[in-house]
Amino acid sequence: MFSLLLRSRPAGVHVARVSLPKYRSLSTTSPTRTNRAIVYSQNGNPAEVLSVLTYPSLAHPTSGTVNIRYLLSPINPADVNVVEGVYPSKPTLTSNLVQSGKGSKDEPVFIGGNEGLAQVTSIGENVDGLNVGDWVVMVKQQAGTWSASQNVNAQDIVKIPNQGLSEVHAATITVNPPTAYNMLMDYVELQEGDWVMQNGANSAVGQAVIQIAAARGLKTLNFVRNRDDISQLKDQLRKIGATQVLTYDDLNDKSLRDKVKTWLGGKEILLALNCVGKGGETTEMLRYMGKDGHLVSYGAMSKQPLSLPTSAFIFKNLTAHGFWQSRWYLVRSRAEREQLMATLTSLMKEGKLAAPEHEVVSIDGQDSDGEATTKIRNVFQRLAAGRYGKKVLLKFDE
Amino acid sequence: MFSLLLRSRPAGVHVARVSLPKYRSLSTTSPTRTNRAIVYSQNGNPAEVLSVLTYPSLAHPTSGTVNIRYLLSPINPADVNVVEGVYPSKPTLTSNLVQSGKGSKDEPVFIGGNEGLAQVTSIGENVDGLNVGDWVVMVKQQAGTWSASQNVNAQDIVKIPNQGLSEVHAATITVNPPTAYNMLMDYVELQEGDWVMQNGANSAVGQAVIQIAAARGLKTLNFVRNRDDISQLKDQLRKIGATQVLTYDDLNDKSLRDKVKTWLGGKEILLALNCVGKGGETTEMLRYMGKDGHLVSYGAMSKQPLSLPTSAFIFKNLTAHGFWQSRWYLVRSRAEREQLMATLTSLMKEGKLAAPEHEVVSIDGQDSDGEATTKIRNVFQRLAAGRYGKKVLLKFDE
Repeated sequence: MFSLLLRSRPAGVHVARVSLPKYRSLSTTSPTRTNRAIVYSQNGNPAEVLSVLTYPSLAHPTSGTVNIRYLLSPINPADVNVVEGVYPSKPTLTSNLVQSGKGSKDEPVFIGGNEGLAQVTSIGENVDGLNVGDWVVMVKQQAGTWSASQNVNAQDIVKIPNQGLSEVHAATITVNPPTAYNMLMDYVELQEGDWVMQNGANSAVGQAVIQIAAARGLKTLNFVRNRDDISQLKDQLRKIGATQVLTYDDLNDKSLRDKVKTWLGGKEILLALNCVGKGGETTEMLRYMGKDGHLVSYGAMSKQPLSLPTSAFIFKNLTAHGFWQSRWYLVRSRAEREQLMATLTSLMKEGKLAAPEHEVVSIDGQDSDGEATTKIRNVFQRLAAGRYGKKVLLKFDE
Repeated sequence: MFSLLLRSRPAGVHVARVSLPKYRSLSTTSPTRTNRAIVYSQNGNPAEVLSVLTYPSLAHPTSGTVNIRYLLSPINPADVNVVEGVYPSKPTLTSNLVQSGKGSKDEPVFIGGNEGLAQVTSIGENVDGLNVGDWVVMVKQQAGTWSASQNVNAQDIVKIPNQGLSEVHAATITVNPPTAYNMLMDYVELQEGDWVMQNGANSAVGQAVIQIAAARGLKTLNFVRNRDDISQLKDQLRKIGATQVLTYDDLNDKSLRDKVKTWLGGKEILLALNCVGKGGETTEMLRYMGKDGHLVSYGAMSKQPLSLPTSAFIFKNLTAHGFWQSRWYLVRSRAEREQLMATLTSLMKEGKLAAPEHEVVSIDGQDSDGEATTKIRNVFQRLAAGRYGKKVLLKFDE
């Protein structure tokens, strides 16, 4: 039923690189629907269950809360799993968007989205350290960032410095860069010149790992899938700081051992980051791990179990962990979260951590909820079909 | 070629329960070959490569060394892997057993055996804290304990109190009981009343886990293979302190979840010990593990890889480790090793840690090296065929 929609990009879903001037509708009337959210009542395929819902302007924020307006909200792979209902984090039901019908107490809905950059628009009593116009990101998980505006608890947001940082940088700061940063910090005490190994090195997290490692003086041994334009990809990853880039096919080459040995120059690899989650390739990669090494898995996109040789645990003292940034936020203090954001924004401002390649999808205020719903579902269908290949960021017309 | 030998136990290899009075040869002459070792020149099937070698009496020990005489030396499963050459620990070559031929510099040999109880027979200069007659066990790995006597570095042995402890207790104290004890201590801080889960619960380590856990007030959820005499095995394990005993088949029973929940009474299992090393059953067992749990694998007998769901690592914060008692000895101090032995001997003396079921195989001093070799090879063939089912301990005639 969606195949026809794929032929062309539907009118009203404006796609633009954020570095270009923002595309504006040529309509002479200004957008009429400025408060909208992408919601669902039941789990399922996002291209079938999501819909766009318009709601009235927010009341003045109550004590301890602020009103925010989202500037950009990414669609992350895990967001799709949340809508499907197969992700461990669940959003809470929202019942105060409207007075009656969908989004009210009669028919509560989930709002999609876990990550996003917002701006403070008004501030309730008993809120310290925030001003109107401040950039904020959510530290609460599954907050429903695919919204135009929200009333949120001040404790659930963290201020982000908006000088020298692009909107895309700030909108994508809470999931992938901290995953990369914390995996590099939390498991092995690495010194300048030490090596880290990873698969899925061209994923969003993988690229952040390469850049943060390079900024810290760490060397990276990176594995990617072989492909037609492999030399281009290798160049791209080396350009952002990758020390060595190999394909999984290279793992079959017996001469690789000697090569890697030469590269390491007597060092041992004690940290391996596993995005792929598959058995065979991960096991092969582990051959290059030293004794007492740590394998940290963070990508569960592959539904296949992790198959590891028992002997690696017993005789090489391998320890296998899982990293989940959502848990990190839950168990760490507010001060630690703020420190993390400060560290990452510094790296971004110094040009050491680039914004991801991306496309901005704008939701036109002129469109009816029905029209906007059709367009949003089409975006998710294109995503599922792998038609993007870069990060998609949602933007609601003001 | 060995099948004929299996028909009956060959003369000269005396098998007796050590709790019974020791069987003595009725021969009127006393044994003539009192210094012997079980050696091999190349890796392979123990039933094919091992041979018994007689060597002269030891010289008086040099400074810092002592001469010891082995009382009992177990054959552990890992010892077979060492002889096969598939185990990460390798013994060092011995070239001073005899002046010429096999066991000399011309033809150095490996001596089998990693664990054993010995008695100090003479002491060199500069050795503190040891007396003739003291019981000692090896802290050096692959020391060649399948010997009648040895000259050893005093640093490579630890004294064991010989009051209130059987020879079998002391001879089997360095591998299985410390594996059980350290796995219970090193990964999760368990409080009285907490639960531990394990598979292979009727293995030597498994039974030690049950007993040590019970002595510490911990509860155990134990999994074993289903078998004809399962209720007998369950009774036996409960008798030594198992709280609950289940079979892997029970894991298919959907009502098990509720049962386990009731048993746990609100507690979560945070430590699982994996002897089997197989994927499926381990994964099934992990369903009963709480968040932030630790899976410790120590048995590599199954050559199959450990297959674990990536989601357990990421979303349940599972950490997977390997435990190897050999590594523990390498990285811990002498004081820690002695403390460990003291703790285990206390448990044994208090009757809280029973000696393993066992058979003693005596090597008759009347037999020629050729005869003894045939008999020893037969023992290993019986072991490989699973003909024992209890721990085999070697004893050299004095």
